[in-house]
Amino acid sequence: MGTAVATKGLEGIVATNSSICWIDGDAGVLAYRGIDIHELASKSTFEETAYLLWNGTLSTLPELDAFTRRLTEARKLPPQIIDLLRSFPKEATPMEVLRTAVSALSFYDPNEKAVDHESNIRKSFALTAQIAMLVAAFDRLRKGKRVVDPDPSLSHAGNFLWMLTGEKPSDTATRALDVALILHADHELNASTFAARVIAATLSDIHSAITGAIGALKGPLHGGANENVMRMLFAIEEQGEDPVEHVRQMLAEKKKVSGFGHRVYHTEDPRATHLRKMSEDLGRASGNTKWFDMSRKIELFVNAEKKLNANVDFYSASTYTTLGIDLDLFTPIFATSRIAGWAAHVIEQLDDNRLIRPRAEYVGPHYPVKYTPLAQR
Amino acid sequence: MGTAVATKGLEGIVATNSSICWIDGDAGVLAYRGIDIHELASKSTFEETAYLLWNGTLSTLPELDAFTRRLTEARKLPPQIIDLLRSFPKEATPMEVLRTAVSALSFYDPNEKAVDHESNIRKSFALTAQIAMLVAAFDRLRKGKRVVDPDPSLSHAGNFLWMLTGEKPSDTATRALDVALILHADHELNASTFAARVIAATLSDIHSAITGAIGALKGPLHGGANENVMRMLFAIEEQGEDPVEHVRQMLAEKKKVSGFGHRVYHTEDPRATHLRKMSEDLGRASGNTKWFDMSRKIELFVNAEKKLNANVDFYSASTYTTLGIDLDLFTPIFATSRIAGWAAHVIEQLDDNRLIRPRAEYVGPHYPVKYTPLAQR
Repeated sequence: MGTAVATKGLEGIVATNSSICWIDGDAGVLAYRGIDIHELASKSTFEETAYLLWNGTLSTLPELDAFTRRLTEARKLPPQIIDLLRSFPKEATPMEVLRTAVSALSFYDPNEKAVDHESNIRKSFALTAQIAMLVAAFDRLRKGKRVVDPDPSLSHAGNFLWMLTGEKPSDTATRALDVALILHADHELNASTFAARVIAATLSDIHSAITGAIGALKGPLHGGANENVMRMLFAIEEQGEDPVEHVRQMLAEKKKVSGFGHRVYHTEDPRATHLRKMSEDLGRASGNTKWFDMSRKIELFVNAEKKLNANVDFYSASTYTTLGIDLDLFTPIFATSRIAGWAAHVIEQLDDNRLIRPRAEYVGPHYPVKYTPLAQR
Repeated sequence: MGTAVATKGLEGIVATNSSICWIDGDAGVLAYRGIDIHELASKSTFEETAYLLWNGTLSTLPELDAFTRRLTEARKLPPQIIDLLRSFPKEATPMEVLRTAVSALSFYDPNEKAVDHESNIRKSFALTAQIAMLVAAFDRLRKGKRVVDPDPSLSHAGNFLWMLTGEKPSDTATRALDVALILHADHELNASTFAARVIAATLSDIHSAITGAIGALKGPLHGGANENVMRMLFAIEEQGEDPVEHVRQMLAEKKKVSGFGHRVYHTEDPRATHLRKMSEDLGRASGNTKWFDMSRKIELFVNAEKKLNANVDFYSASTYTTLGIDLDLFTPIFATSRIAGWAAHVIEQLDDNRLIRPRAEYVGPHYPVKYTPLAQR
């Protein structure tokens, strides 16, 4: 076939050129458009980060104002979509709901088939605003509460907490979520982003690409990992166990401890550094460092025993729980941030497109297998 | 990064081992589980082909009976899904509707998160039966007609035509659609199947994988091509043009003629052989060979002028139109068949899974780009 044999899972295979995200797994570097994630996490906002991801450079003040205004104005859901959310079973997982509702949003897009650069930018604003609204609205509806209208005076992070809780969030809470959104906004060709690019490369629409990405993010090996971290912490607390003993037992039983190790990073995941601090700061501000303390003990133990570093998922679990966010909203919040990166990648893919169509190495029955008529089998 | 540079679009890159589909692009061979597509197209049925794709070998008669019974029994849609279809705008494209409805079906799956082999098989029966039902039901609803209940005495192909038209289909029509479904059932790592595997490999559920695959198939570079072929034929007829002159003009204007050439085949697409015959047979049976005749003239001209062969899309256009099927149902019918292959690939992926996570070659601003505070920009 003239094909090369790839490593399973395309590990180490370059699937495309991209100018969005730089990862140096050995040095533990993550940078968006060349700017270190530490700079962005400590100095920037989600809005500024989304601007950077979509435009390639940092904005001027007027550019950022225009960008923020456009994002704020995009905070609209068609009334049919709210009806749709109401019609879904309350027990449906928020990721199924998000996947379905994002797919349905294309019905109401004024030009759902358009895949040119400007249309994709317009749709990216809409989807970024709407994904946050969908996550908050479904959580309210399933709890029998009224849907909270967005507040145009609030940032993306602050408005999300407002729509979720119906209460004006503290500056500490808003900043914590904002940092989490910055840290999760992009990560090169992770599985959901890669799925989005594969779908977009058929010249299908961005709603299709993002719907597929949400489906991929839903997987326990991708977006679902911080839920598993939190389930472990809850189980430890419920059983009144010592966290280190619990994890020692898990390792003895050859069980995987979620939130550690990463295919790309061979050192500390640079996002973990900020989430560790965020988890601690939020704990102190709320007077409850229980989840942080437990996490820290586990981290030190796993690090010493297995030489594995905490990844982005490990401290996002205690951070979100300390913010009062339900377990099954962790991955939807990941989507609320990653839409910025997904959109950047879809736009980049379609600006210079080629169908993504690899080959398989055939290892089945040797051709030609005889077709025996049914009566003779 | 220790990575290799790939050809754009992963062309020629082996992404996985697979024992499902064998393609020899130089010899023009397509085989499912080692059995030549010509054998299957002339002797088999969609049900037998789906059994083969999912199980790896041809069935015995009792096995095929059990398989067919299970597929027939899976022809059920939750009433909420019919309500959902009714709530969608009548102008929505059937592919958007299918993507959204398949996503919503997971709400009603008794164990939507399960990804073990048996659960995937159970869900594959459900999805194969339900995708056909969704396509037919939405087409009826948008035309203000009642939804037609499935007829358990009919084959998958025959029942689809029954649910679509509300009339018992002729043997010729049933066989034509059955052959089209066999021919479209799998094609190795085409973009939609690859998207399904990327999504499934995160251990997300099969509804997520198939929803993503439908989004990819929707793209004009993938499932949408036969629609474009038919649009061209309709335009030629409407303007009373000579088909060869029309295409000569297109080529002079450097326009792409849909339905010709294929990334993998360098000779005739073996599926085109059968669809050409099907288009001709159906035309003769219905006393209207107009679309076949027009197609044949174009094929001979493009073949002579550009050395390009007709692909699977070229004659499926005239075949479906002669069957009385609307233009925008061509791609949904493709999905009605390809679900067999998508399911086989998702099952294979999850039977021996590894996250699919390639790398990108970073070509953006050189790290580290300085973060200039907003006030100083």
